Amino acid sequence: MDYKKFENNRKKKVALIGCGLIGQSWAISFLNAGFNVSLFDPAKGITAQAKEKIEAKLSDLQVNGLIKKKNISNYLAKIHLAEDLSSAVRDSIHIQESGPEDLKVKKELTKKIDAVAAENIPIASSTSGIPASLYASDVKGQYRCLVAHPINPPHLIPAVEIVPAPFTSTSITGAVKDIIISIDKEPLELNKEIPGFVVNRLQGALLNEAFKLVKDDISSAENIDKAISEGLGLRWSFMGPFQTIHLNAPEGIAGYVKRYEEMYKDMLNKPEIDWSSIVELGLEEELLKLYPLSEREKHEKDRDNKLTKLILHKTKP
Amino acid sequence: MDYKKFENNRKKKVALIGCGLIGQSWAISFLNAGFNVSLFDPAKGITAQAKEKIEAKLSDLQVNGLIKKKNISNYLAKIHLAEDLSSAVRDSIHIQESGPEDLKVKKELTKKIDAVAAENIPIASSTSGIPASLYASDVKGQYRCLVAHPINPPHLIPAVEIVPAPFTSTSITGAVKDIIISIDKEPLELNKEIPGFVVNRLQGALLNEAFKLVKDDISSAENIDKAISEGLGLRWSFMGPFQTIHLNAPEGIAGYVKRYEEMYKDMLNKPEIDWSSIVELGLEEELLKLYPLSEREKHEKDRDNKLTKLILHKTKP
Repeated sequence: MDYKKFENNRKKKVALIGCGLIGQSWAISFLNAGFNVSLFDPAKGITAQAKEKIEAKLSDLQVNGLIKKKNISNYLAKIHLAEDLSSAVRDSIHIQESGPEDLKVKKELTKKIDAVAAENIPIASSTSGIPASLYASDVKGQYRCLVAHPINPPHLIPAVEIVPAPFTSTSITGAVKDIIISIDKEPLELNKEIPGFVVNRLQGALLNEAFKLVKDDISSAENIDKAISEGLGLRWSFMGPFQTIHLNAPEGIAGYVKRYEEMYKDMLNKPEIDWSSIVELGLEEELLKLYPLSEREKHEKDRDNKLTKLILHKTKP
Repeated sequence: MDYKKFENNRKKKVALIGCGLIGQSWAISFLNAGFNVSLFDPAKGITAQAKEKIEAKLSDLQVNGLIKKKNISNYLAKIHLAEDLSSAVRDSIHIQESGPEDLKVKKELTKKIDAVAAENIPIASSTSGIPASLYASDVKGQYRCLVAHPINPPHLIPAVEIVPAPFTSTSITGAVKDIIISIDKEPLELNKEIPGFVVNRLQGALLNEAFKLVKDDISSAENIDKAISEGLGLRWSFMGPFQTIHLNAPEGIAGYVKRYEEMYKDMLNKPEIDWSSIVELGLEEELLKLYPLSEREKHEKDRDNKLTKLILHKTKP
């Protein structure tokens, strides 16, 4: 968090509606970036408990030098425990709803927030899979509703999926991306809505395969976990799946698909997609632009260097 | 690599057949663990080239303090460039074949190796997806054939899948696991053969979903990559998918499945498996034994601590 960003946020306030684990993590991210936060939860007594948990987590971050101010009380002073929705959203430039993952509850909560929030203030939901089209289509101010989905634990993981509905105004989407950037997170904007978004669709596909392997008694859960934590997950902690395979064949992704398409086709019980056609549809073009084959050697060295450091980091006592 | 292991390996020799990227990486792992290595490649001149590349990679590892000896020439002196298969396998206690990913080629190569290797010496293949039942069923010494699949780049990634065929003798499988452990790698033994094994089935499932997201224009490849490298991949670099979800609900995996089963069912186009039945089939039992709910708070803190350090590690210049 650079000083300029922090100073810029210092007089701003955000409203966090729903104060479970996710709401608490949002509070930490916003506080650490200089913001004032209002906490509100429909259940009595939750906001006071949340404040205690936020304090404990801030202490953990402080030990690691990850928070800006020396004195945690400076952060706690910027937390406002709101008695009702209206006072929570008052003067807030952004509203982040982290209620239960229940369509009906989310519909009603969003309507209530919309009724009390000033015009043009974004109402972003932390939902991990429900598109705004489903929960906000009846909301009067639907133009300012969209998803900003963080990944657990959100005060540590950078990625935040930004998923506007077709009815979300582009200026609202832009404002939400800006605020996510201002708290040092990485907004990933989707082109279109889809249930589960990108993160949970990727996680779901992996989990589904992992469940099948357990069901067919191929391996213990422990070994499946290690196939990731001592294997694929090491690369994935700094390099996504496309960049990984792009680097796994001398000709890049087209070569990888050509080489391994048959193997994957055999193993995916119902291949629903022709991999080589996707490469031709523009994926190769995008990857070659991001990672030209001419820089292959550099990227390979860079990968190995990062892996080396990661392994040193993982194994040092 | 501890001193005792290293000393114990110092007089032993392994034969590496096929000297592309994978064979070279195996050479580094074995050399670094004290072994002598014989390199053989059916194509002329490849072993000499491989030796140069091995030297370059050893230098990179040296810079990071990841190799044991001060003088790289000490390692190079332990490399024997074999003129033919027979001299490569002579006096070797383990044979690692890293030939092309082609069933026919692998069948013939394995037969040739078997014909010249002494009895009871394991012949392990680096294949990333072809079970030994497919390539070694015609081999006379099929009892000593199995898969030992490393992950690219194998001199850095710890996991090695050990996949015996039904005809592989258990003492051979045990010996191969021991040798993998003796070079500081993590052997993951599968209970049964399956094409693609565990690693590439997990990777294939994730890739297939990622390809579908690109095809449906949900997101750019760059954002999909970031959903992993700035999101899911951070946790997965030290914690597998089961441990991750086990920790994502207060009741552990059963609670997670109950909470999110519907969301995942909606998003997986053709759910082929009933998640809750898998949990009941023994998965929950295994996870609760590995990570009891009573230690949940400790595990959560441990996760956040590792993530914090990982993020510091990733972001420091």
